[in-house]
Amino acid sequence: GSFDGIEQEEETEHMIENNFVVEAENVASSIDPKEMRAVILAGFGGLNKLRVTKKTMPEPQHGEVKIRVKACGLNFVDLMVRQGNIDSPPKPPLIPGFECSGIVESIGENTHGFEIGDRVMAFVCYNAWAEVVCTPVDYVYKMPDKMSFQEAAAFSLNYVAAYMMLFEVANLREGMSVLVHSAGGSVGQAVAQLCSSVPNVTVFGIASCSKHVAIRDSVTHIFDRNADYVQEVKKISPEGVDIVLDCLSGEHTGKGLALLKPLGAYVLYGASNMVTGETKSFFSIAKSWWQVEKVNPFKLYEENKVMAGFSLLNLLFKQGGGVRVKTVMDKLLSLYNQGRIKPVVDSLWALEEVKEAMQRIHDRGNVGKLILDIEKSPTPLMANDSTETSEAGEEEEDPEGDNDNKERMPFIQ
Amino acid sequence: GSFDGIEQEEETEHMIENNFVVEAENVASSIDPKEMRAVILAGFGGLNKLRVTKKTMPEPQHGEVKIRVKACGLNFVDLMVRQGNIDSPPKPPLIPGFECSGIVESIGENTHGFEIGDRVMAFVCYNAWAEVVCTPVDYVYKMPDKMSFQEAAAFSLNYVAAYMMLFEVANLREGMSVLVHSAGGSVGQAVAQLCSSVPNVTVFGIASCSKHVAIRDSVTHIFDRNADYVQEVKKISPEGVDIVLDCLSGEHTGKGLALLKPLGAYVLYGASNMVTGETKSFFSIAKSWWQVEKVNPFKLYEENKVMAGFSLLNLLFKQGGGVRVKTVMDKLLSLYNQGRIKPVVDSLWALEEVKEAMQRIHDRGNVGKLILDIEKSPTPLMANDSTETSEAGEEEEDPEGDNDNKERMPFIQ
Repeated sequence: GSFDGIEQEEETEHMIENNFVVEAENVASSIDPKEMRAVILAGFGGLNKLRVTKKTMPEPQHGEVKIRVKACGLNFVDLMVRQGNIDSPPKPPLIPGFECSGIVESIGENTHGFEIGDRVMAFVCYNAWAEVVCTPVDYVYKMPDKMSFQEAAAFSLNYVAAYMMLFEVANLREGMSVLVHSAGGSVGQAVAQLCSSVPNVTVFGIASCSKHVAIRDSVTHIFDRNADYVQEVKKISPEGVDIVLDCLSGEHTGKGLALLKPLGAYVLYGASNMVTGETKSFFSIAKSWWQVEKVNPFKLYEENKVMAGFSLLNLLFKQGGGVRVKTVMDKLLSLYNQGRIKPVVDSLWALEEVKEAMQRIHDRGNVGKLILDIEKSPTPLMANDSTETSEAGEEEEDPEGDNDNKERMPFIQ
Repeated sequence: GSFDGIEQEEETEHMIENNFVVEAENVASSIDPKEMRAVILAGFGGLNKLRVTKKTMPEPQHGEVKIRVKACGLNFVDLMVRQGNIDSPPKPPLIPGFECSGIVESIGENTHGFEIGDRVMAFVCYNAWAEVVCTPVDYVYKMPDKMSFQEAAAFSLNYVAAYMMLFEVANLREGMSVLVHSAGGSVGQAVAQLCSSVPNVTVFGIASCSKHVAIRDSVTHIFDRNADYVQEVKKISPEGVDIVLDCLSGEHTGKGLALLKPLGAYVLYGASNMVTGETKSFFSIAKSWWQVEKVNPFKLYEENKVMAGFSLLNLLFKQGGGVRVKTVMDKLLSLYNQGRIKPVVDSLWALEEVKEAMQRIHDRGNVGKLILDIEKSPTPLMANDSTETSEAGEEEEDPEGDNDNKERMPFIQ
């Protein structure tokens, strides 16, 4: 079964912790073949809105594939979902998560291209953070033999996004230069690797000082996120750069556009500046939206510049981009098989550790991807911590920053 | 000499017209090797600001090539220059014109790559509409043997602009669709031809009804410029188009963005809606600038869209794009030599006919390119017209619309 990890060597340790008696009970009862464990977001808000619980297992509909999940990807957008800071979010309670890897367990009617037992990775429109997911066959891709489930869960969203931004939106070619924010993040690392697949591309990466050693080899030049990067880039390349990839928005939009060479492209692919605290705040989002500097098309005309936005989730789930993404995935798997790209996994977390994992993304502590490893058992809590795995879904506000001292030690690769 | 045309078969006819006695005198005196004929813009404003006069011939500086001009291209932007409706225009009097073809007559010091007698086409930062121009060697390109001077003068700006917009800004590929405004204009025809060099590209062209027969074969679907083209396109392609090329601006920016498929690109490459009448009007320009709808980057993010601006003149003359354009020109000349593209010349005009030629562009009467043919003699005026070739540069306002009945008959190819 998929709970071997919990039932193996760490079981004794878990039993020491009262909380994990609850987990163990879950495991025991989830032998019920109609039930599965899943992360539930009870309502929009802070980390305390998340818990692990049992849910009825889904069955594949017409055109869907049912996957026994091995690993799930955690992305910054999951924090925005948790806060309700996305466009028309579904009504909670919901199971978060947009990507996973696993094994095909069954197949819906009139669904072709996969067989039971296939190792696959998949996009899911929510519901990925569970032991079992069902998703349309168009969002499922066979994994290369040498790819691990953890790598696969780190692959889909970030590499497809990086590839499409660089090659379909911005038209990266030999000799160009790319500025990427959050260069240590999972998209940033995918961008750096894909840039190195093109001859003579210069990558300017922006990252916290603490990550500079870890990512030094993946980028050409590295700047601290508190530095005046516009000046720093211009010292090295007075004429600017060809491509700016921005996941922050706000003031960085104007700075990015200003840094472009003629015919250069600025691509906005996220708005992580919007996530500032733990509370849901439609107000602060609305404010961010309206405060962002709008751009006059004539300015782009006079300066020969390109401004683009890219949201892979919208492309996949709202705009029918499945076929186009399939083509991109084929190219990416070819690059993977050639050894030219390889996902960087920051750390593995049990479902029960999703709060700490989210906190790590929020604090930008990661280098590469955070993975929810379905078969991983939670790392023991510190002795005097008894609040972490509360399943009560209390409504009190619990700012993430307060959790720093109670953080579990994840399995860092 | 370059005035053979005037001195040949039409000379007798010219002498009938009083105005052409003046022309003939110009010709006689311009045998002075230090002088040349040129179109002069005396000040910003209407057609009456233009006249043909004698100027001192320029000599090539360091890095420049001196060209005996055979033909010049006329573009919509020349109307905007005449009205002073461009960003930081030079102070008049000036010689308009940004492109020409001709024969290399001499070469500046330390200037390599060309020999006297070479047939060339060239970009010039103003000063093209004259018998002789000097321009930096980076803006000069050898003509293919089979290309005529008229074709060459129709080639440079329009094909380079069309190519860069389609392939460097917007990334046109097999199976895509393109909407182009002013499909009968010289850029529109270049766009249509370049689209046909890629398999399975659908071109939606917008043009006046009067041009539909002439351009029917160059586009896939054609709409009248007064039609609701958004609805018309959606009837054929409900999901929209991949690329919109807009030389109009104003309301068409929002319509163009709305018509894009996900990952589609809207490219603004002109603002001909700004030229509404004959009078210089900084006010109406400023108004147009501020009234144009600015675009929120988040909207592009949510919709997966690209908004770009393209100005080849700015790229060439303000942004150091010469080397990049040279690469594009090499590709275009290869396509020309393969017979895959061929400039469409609407009509040839003598320098003295520049007002009528401009009027034709203003009225959007052309299919393809208007050429100032240096060796062409003016077509005789209608008998009761005596104002057309006045060289006095009167300051009275003379709306172009009033000239309709006095138009000369150009040589239409």
